[in-house]
Amino acid sequence: MTPARKLTVTALAGGIGASKLLLGLYGAMDPHALTVIVNTGDDIVLHGLKISPDLDIVTYTLAGVVNPATGWGMRGETFHFLKRLGIYGREIWFNLGDRDLATHIHRTDLLAHGKTLSQAAESIRHALGVKSRILPMSDQPIPTIMETRDGNMHFQEYLIKHRTEPGIRGIHFSGIKQAHAAPGVLEAICDADRVIICPSNPLISIGPILAVPRVREQLRARKESVIAVCPIVGGKSLKGPSDKMLIQLGCGSSASAVAKLYADFTGTFVIDRRDSSQEPAIRALGMKVAILPTVMKTYADKRRLARALLAL
Amino acid sequence: MTPARKLTVTALAGGIGASKLLLGLYGAMDPHALTVIVNTGDDIVLHGLKISPDLDIVTYTLAGVVNPATGWGMRGETFHFLKRLGIYGREIWFNLGDRDLATHIHRTDLLAHGKTLSQAAESIRHALGVKSRILPMSDQPIPTIMETRDGNMHFQEYLIKHRTEPGIRGIHFSGIKQAHAAPGVLEAICDADRVIICPSNPLISIGPILAVPRVREQLRARKESVIAVCPIVGGKSLKGPSDKMLIQLGCGSSASAVAKLYADFTGTFVIDRRDSSQEPAIRALGMKVAILPTVMKTYADKRRLARALLAL
Repeated sequence: MTPARKLTVTALAGGIGASKLLLGLYGAMDPHALTVIVNTGDDIVLHGLKISPDLDIVTYTLAGVVNPATGWGMRGETFHFLKRLGIYGREIWFNLGDRDLATHIHRTDLLAHGKTLSQAAESIRHALGVKSRILPMSDQPIPTIMETRDGNMHFQEYLIKHRTEPGIRGIHFSGIKQAHAAPGVLEAICDADRVIICPSNPLISIGPILAVPRVREQLRARKESVIAVCPIVGGKSLKGPSDKMLIQLGCGSSASAVAKLYADFTGTFVIDRRDSSQEPAIRALGMKVAILPTVMKTYADKRRLARALLAL
Repeated sequence: MTPARKLTVTALAGGIGASKLLLGLYGAMDPHALTVIVNTGDDIVLHGLKISPDLDIVTYTLAGVVNPATGWGMRGETFHFLKRLGIYGREIWFNLGDRDLATHIHRTDLLAHGKTLSQAAESIRHALGVKSRILPMSDQPIPTIMETRDGNMHFQEYLIKHRTEPGIRGIHFSGIKQAHAAPGVLEAICDADRVIICPSNPLISIGPILAVPRVREQLRARKESVIAVCPIVGGKSLKGPSDKMLIQLGCGSSASAVAKLYADFTGTFVIDRRDSSQEPAIRALGMKVAILPTVMKTYADKRRLARALLAL
């Protein structure tokens, strides 16, 4: 067997759900040939600190320092800082661990010195020894705003402070029309052998990336190479509130409902065996369907799914 | 005995040395009648955080949360943040504890939202339950710059990064001429029954406060009520590098050398019994001399000295 040219992969990712598959890819391929484009709609400034939850979850996961019990934050984390911060009367609904704080302060200070979010992400992943490129979707802030019955609120307020309780009527990405894809994002989609849409929330993890000007068009141009892994299995989210949100916005919570959202730019839609009855409906949307075990509990599950995707 | 009117005291303070006496005063008098004017020449911005070492030492001490082993930082402190910060290639010579960080982030965010350093100090001391007023000497940054054989450097770099090793040739307070005393500072000196100069480094703790426009003049106007506690006992600093710095700048390291620096505005100069031979020389400078036990090791020592000063 002659050495094959390295297969290059670009993955679109949210946080915890995506990171399971990304960890599998990281182990199943040359990690230097992997580029991850990460949702930054979740980003928020709290206490003057620029916090990029999905960038950090992806980076910590690939660096092997993530808290395995939660999928976010650092392994063995402590919260002495946060407890003291509460004494100053500050809202402490957003968890900020002592170790994690080093990342936020480093990033915030780089931005204050004129660096871009991309440059901060690059500094952080290099320092943590991550071999894959990690790109924010944009260097501009594009906060995801949830339109709820209790009024508009930042996604993190909806998710953490209000525990996804307010019913949602819509979602928008503030400032998206004036934003640009971060350097390398469009090229990474254009040049990769495979583009993988990770099993993340289609509305608030993949949705913001798709909404960045020219990203969706670029994906459409690569439709045959785009593989999307469905985050809904048996009508339920693999992780997080995707199912509830899809239902509240009238999309319905099923694999084919997600397929509809991705049909214009996805060549192959990957569903779990449990959803095989939806194969004809998804094919009717103009996509190939691959049936693979998409529920990843162990590291072996993650690598197996990653290998299967690379072999498609 | 009829209830006496509350004796009001204003103290000028640096960090650790001053805090010993301040803790004594806090216990020996009505703490609401105590105002502390604190050196901010040591303040520095590191990693985007506004750090006010002396303000924090004084506040933590009076709040009872200071680390008793070091005199700075918080009791039971951990340094998980700092260790991770080093991984990002940042200089970590300045100790930033996990709990302590809450203070720096709270203050930095208040300043970023247009609050003054005075307002931040007030917020912090209130949150920590300190009953005495704690005023920064100025709301403007006035960094103490050490003129050394290795070039000019910020006082914290000299003190911590270079462990006071470079020989010094001079000291200046950057921006002092354009600065103003913080709100309440001049009034606190004018209105107090007693003004106490704490046993802090005369060059880099009390010196910067004296250099703030109008402070020295205000003290001169209250000369009869000003009591200075000498930080040099038996030719040595009670704490820190005062003795070495006094010698390098040609002042000499003795009680009377400090007395010379304070003679124009001090009514009573307090020395330890060990320095009683210097009493005539100090009297010759136009001050009364009080001989008191100024070495404070225990809380009882601190209260005893405080009571003796209040009784002068």
